[in-house]
Amino acid sequence: MNYQLIREECCEANLALPKTGLVDLTFGNVSVLDPDKSVFAIKPSGVDYGELRPEQMVIVDLEGKIVEGELRPSSDTPTHRRLFLAFAESGMRSVVHTHSRSAVAFAQAGRSIPCLGTTHADHFYGSVPVTRAMTAEEINGEYEWETGNVIVETFGQMDPMEIPAVLVRGHGPFAWNVSASKAVEYALALEIVADMALKTFSIAADSPGIDQTLLDKHFLRKHGKSAYYGQG
Amino acid sequence: MNYQLIREECCEANLALPKTGLVDLTFGNVSVLDPDKSVFAIKPSGVDYGELRPEQMVIVDLEGKIVEGELRPSSDTPTHRRLFLAFAESGMRSVVHTHSRSAVAFAQAGRSIPCLGTTHADHFYGSVPVTRAMTAEEINGEYEWETGNVIVETFGQMDPMEIPAVLVRGHGPFAWNVSASKAVEYALALEIVADMALKTFSIAADSPGIDQTLLDKHFLRKHGKSAYYGQG
Amino acid sequence: MNYQLIREECCEANLALPKTGLVDLTFGNVSVLDPDKSVFAIKPSGVDYGELRPEQMVIVDLEGKIVEGELRPSSDTPTHRRLFLAFAESGMRSVVHTHSRSAVAFAQAGRSIPCLGTTHADHFYGSVPVTRAMTAEEINGEYEWETGNVIVETFGQMDPMEIPAVLVRGHGPFAWNVSASKAVEYALALEIVADMALKTFSIAADSPGIDQTLLDKHFLRKHGKSAYYGQG
Amino acid sequence: MNYQLIREECCEANLALPKTGLVDLTFGNVSVLDPDKSVFAIKPSGVDYGELRPEQMVIVDLEGKIVEGELRPSSDTPTHRRLFLAFAESGMRSVVHTHSRSAVAFAQAGRSIPCLGTTHADHFYGSVPVTRAMTAEEINGEYEWETGNVIVETFGQMDPMEIPAVLVRGHGPFAWNVSASKAVEYALALEIVADMALKTFSIAADSPGIDQTLLDKHFLRKHGKSAYYGQG
Repeated sequence: MNYQLIREECCEANLALPKTGLVDLTFGNVSVLDPDKSVFAIKPSGVDYGELRPEQMVIVDLEGKIVEGELRPSSDTPTHRRLFLAFAESGMRSVVHTHSRSAVAFAQAGRSIPCLGTTHADHFYGSVPVTRAMTAEEINGEYEWETGNVIVETFGQMDPMEIPAVLVRGHGPFAWNVSASKAVEYALALEIVADMALKTFSIAADSPGIDQTLLDKHFLRKHGKSAYYGQG
Repeated sequence: MNYQLIREECCEANLALPKTGLVDLTFGNVSVLDPDKSVFAIKPSGVDYGELRPEQMVIVDLEGKIVEGELRPSSDTPTHRRLFLAFAESGMRSVVHTHSRSAVAFAQAGRSIPCLGTTHADHFYGSVPVTRAMTAEEINGEYEWETGNVIVETFGQMDPMEIPAVLVRGHGPFAWNVSASKAVEYALALEIVADMALKTFSIAADSPGIDQTLLDKHFLRKHGKSAYYGQG
Repeated sequence: MNYQLIREECCEANLALPKTGLVDLTFGNVSVLDPDKSVFAIKPSGVDYGELRPEQMVIVDLEGKIVEGELRPSSDTPTHRRLFLAFAESGMRSVVHTHSRSAVAFAQAGRSIPCLGTTHADHFYGSVPVTRAMTAEEINGEYEWETGNVIVETFGQMDPMEIPAVLVRGHGPFAWNVSASKAVEYALALEIVADMALKTFSIAADSPGIDQTLLDKHFLRKHGKSAYYGQG
Repeated sequence: MNYQLIREECCEANLALPKTGLVDLTFGNVSVLDPDKSVFAIKPSGVDYGELRPEQMVIVDLEGKIVEGELRPSSDTPTHRRLFLAFAESGMRSVVHTHSRSAVAFAQAGRSIPCLGTTHADHFYGSVPVTRAMTAEEINGEYEWETGNVIVETFGQMDPMEIPAVLVRGHGPFAWNVSASKAVEYALALEIVADMALKTFSIAADSPGIDQTLLDKHFLRKHGKSAYYGQG
C-alpha cells in the first residue's frame, strides 16, 4: 500500500511545530491517521526537526505494529494509538503532543484551563481538562498506552471534537483535530489560551470566567451547523 | 464609485497587524471609513493574513449592506459599523480589533487599565475602560451589533478620541483612530501599556497610578492645541 | 565647527536601540556629548527609527540653544542637558532614555531595583534608585528640565558612574555612560536586571538580595583599578 | 601538542549560546575538556560572540596554567577547572555558564528547582540544587575557585551526571555534560524547566511536584541501560 499522503501531511506538520514556538529542543510530535487503511504516520523518536523528511515518518497500524519505516517511532506512539482508537469515530485524524510552556504550567499545577474569555470559547466548548494522576501500576506498566487510557477516561462521555485537547497531569498537552494542520492550530490555540489565563489569574485569581450564553455564542458561531464565521 | 484608497489602506493595516505581534492565528481585523461616501472597507472573515489583497477587502455601507466584495466580511463587521456611527463625528476613521494577550487579560479579569505611568498618558487621557458584561438577550440577539452598543454605552459622554480604545469584558480590545496606521499604532500602544500594568501589579498590587497633573502634562504635550512633541 | 563624529555616534546608537528590543514605537532617544565643544547631538522628536540619518541629529549647546539642525530636537532634550551639566565631570558622555517594559514596571511601582544578584552587581554598584514624585509646580513648569533636576537630586553625593542609571517615578529609565554604545549596553543591562528582579520577586517577595561583600567583588572585578575582567 | 578539536568544539558551542536566547550581552561561557591531555579550552574573557574564532580559545591545564593562547581566559576559568577536577571521572567533558533569566531568578531567590513535571524528569533526576551562600572569606579569597568548591560541596555524594546542573546562590546556573553541544542543550533545558516552574508557581505556589515513580520512569526511559528513547 501507499502511505505517501499521510507521510507528507505528518512531516509537514512536524516541521511546522518549531515555527509556532510551541516546541523546545525535540519535545513534540505529530501523528496523522489514514482511517481507510487503519494506519497512522508518526515522527521518529528523538530526531532533530531540521532533518525530517517524509520518508522518515514511521507507519504504524492500530494494533501497534510497525508497517513501514526503518527508524524507531516516537516513544509516545502508544498514546497516539490509544487516542485514534477512541476518538477517530468522532472525526479526529491527527494528534499533536508538545511541552508548550504555559499549557505545561497548568498540567504541572494539576489544574484544568477554565473558559475565561472568547478566545477560549472560539476553540474549546468548555474547560480544557486535566487528567488524574497516574498510578504507580500504570506508570510502571505500559506507561505510554496508559497515558492514552487516562486521557480517554477523562473525556468519558464528552465529545472529543468539542474540546479537542487535554492536559496530562504533571506532563503536558495533547491536542487533536480533523487534519494535521488543524491539530497544530489547536495546539497553538491551547498555548495562547493558557498564556492568557496565566496573565488573567495574575490580576484576578478568582476569575469566574464567562457564562454559558457567551460560551455557546462564540463556540457555535464557528462550529457546527449554525456557524457563520469564515467563508462558509 | 471607487473605493480603491480605503481598500489599500485597510489591506495594508491588516497586513501590518501580524508584524506587530498583536495577533495570533487569524484573531484580528481592521476597518477603514470613507466618511464622504459613508462606506467602510473591512477584512474578509477567516482569511489568512498571508493571502490578503486590496481587492478582497469588503465594502460595507453604514446601514450594513455589502456594497462591493465577493467574500463574506469579518463576523465583527456590525461592531465596527456601530463604532463608526457613534464615533466618526469625533474624527475617528479606522477601527482595529485584536486578541492581544495582555489587553485580553484585563478584559478577562473585568478590569479597566488605570493610568500607571507616562507611557499610558502619552496615548490615553485616563483609564482604558472595560465594558459591563453583556446580557443573555444581547448575546442571543444581534450579538456583534450589541457588542458595539455596549462599547458606546461605556463611553457615554467621554471623548472617544481622548481614550481611543476599550476592553470588551470577557473578550478583548478594540482601538481606533484617525487613520488605519494610527489605529494599529494605538492597538500596539494599548498592548504595551497592558503588559507594563501586569508587570507593575506583580510588584505593587495597589499601585495608585500617576496623578492628574502628570497625566495632563503628558497627554497634552502630544495631543491638542498646545502639543509640542514631534515635528509640529 | 564640525560635529560629524557625535552626529554619527548618536545616530548609530539611536538605530541600535530598536534592535535591542528596548524601545516600542518611538519611545526612546540617545544623546552624545562633545565635552571639548560643550555641545551634544540628540535624536529629533517623533521621527521613525527607520528613517534616521546622521545629518538629522540636532546639535544643542549646554545652555539649550540649537547650534545646528533643521528638525526639532527630542522633547526630552532639557533632561539630557541637565544630566550632562551635572554628570559630565564624572566622565559621562552619553544618555539613553527608553520605556523598556520591566524597568518601567519598577518606575510605575515607585520602587528602586535592589541588587538581587551578580548580574546586577556586574553593572551597578548598589540599588538603581527611583526618584521622588515630581510636584505640580515642577510638572507645570519646565517639566523636562525639572525631570533632570529630580534625577540629580536623587543622586546627591552618589557617583553617577558607579550607578549609571535611574528610574524616574511613574515614567521610566534613563541610563548613561562614557560612550553611546556603552550607554545603550547599560540601558539593556538595566532592563535585564529588572526582568530578573520581577521573576525573582514572583517566587521570593521578600528577597534580601546579595550582601555587600559579593557586590564589592563583582562590581570591582569589572570596574576600577583592580578590575581583572576582559582583556585589560 | 594539538588542541584543534577542543578549540573547535569550544568555539562552536560558545557561538551557539547566543542563538539559544540563553545569554544577554557577554554573560556566558563554555569550556571543553580533553581528558587524555588533561587540558581544557575556554572562551576568552569579555570578547563579543560575533568575533569568536577557534584560535582565540584559551587552552588551560588542570593546574590552572595557560598552555596556549594570547588572550586572557574567562574570569570564571577557575570555576570550570574545579568542576573538571571533581566531575570528569563521571564522564563530564564540558561546562556551560550562563545568566539565563529564569534560572537566575531561582538562584537569586535562593531556591532549588523542584521536579514539577516530566520535562524536568526527562533531563534531571531530581531537584536542581542551589548552593549555600558563600562566606566573606571565600568571596575575598580565590573567589572563582571557591565558587567551584561550593558547587562540589553541594553535590556531595550525588552523581553529577544524573543532575548535570546547579544554581550558584545569588549568581546563576552552571550546566555540564559529555560534550559541548549536550552541555548547551542542558543549559537550555534548565532554563525551560525554570520558566515552566515560575509559571507553575504563579498559579500553584505549593505545588508538590511529581512523585518518584513518574520521575524514575521519565529519567530512566531516556538515560542509562534501560533507555528506549531516540534511535538507540
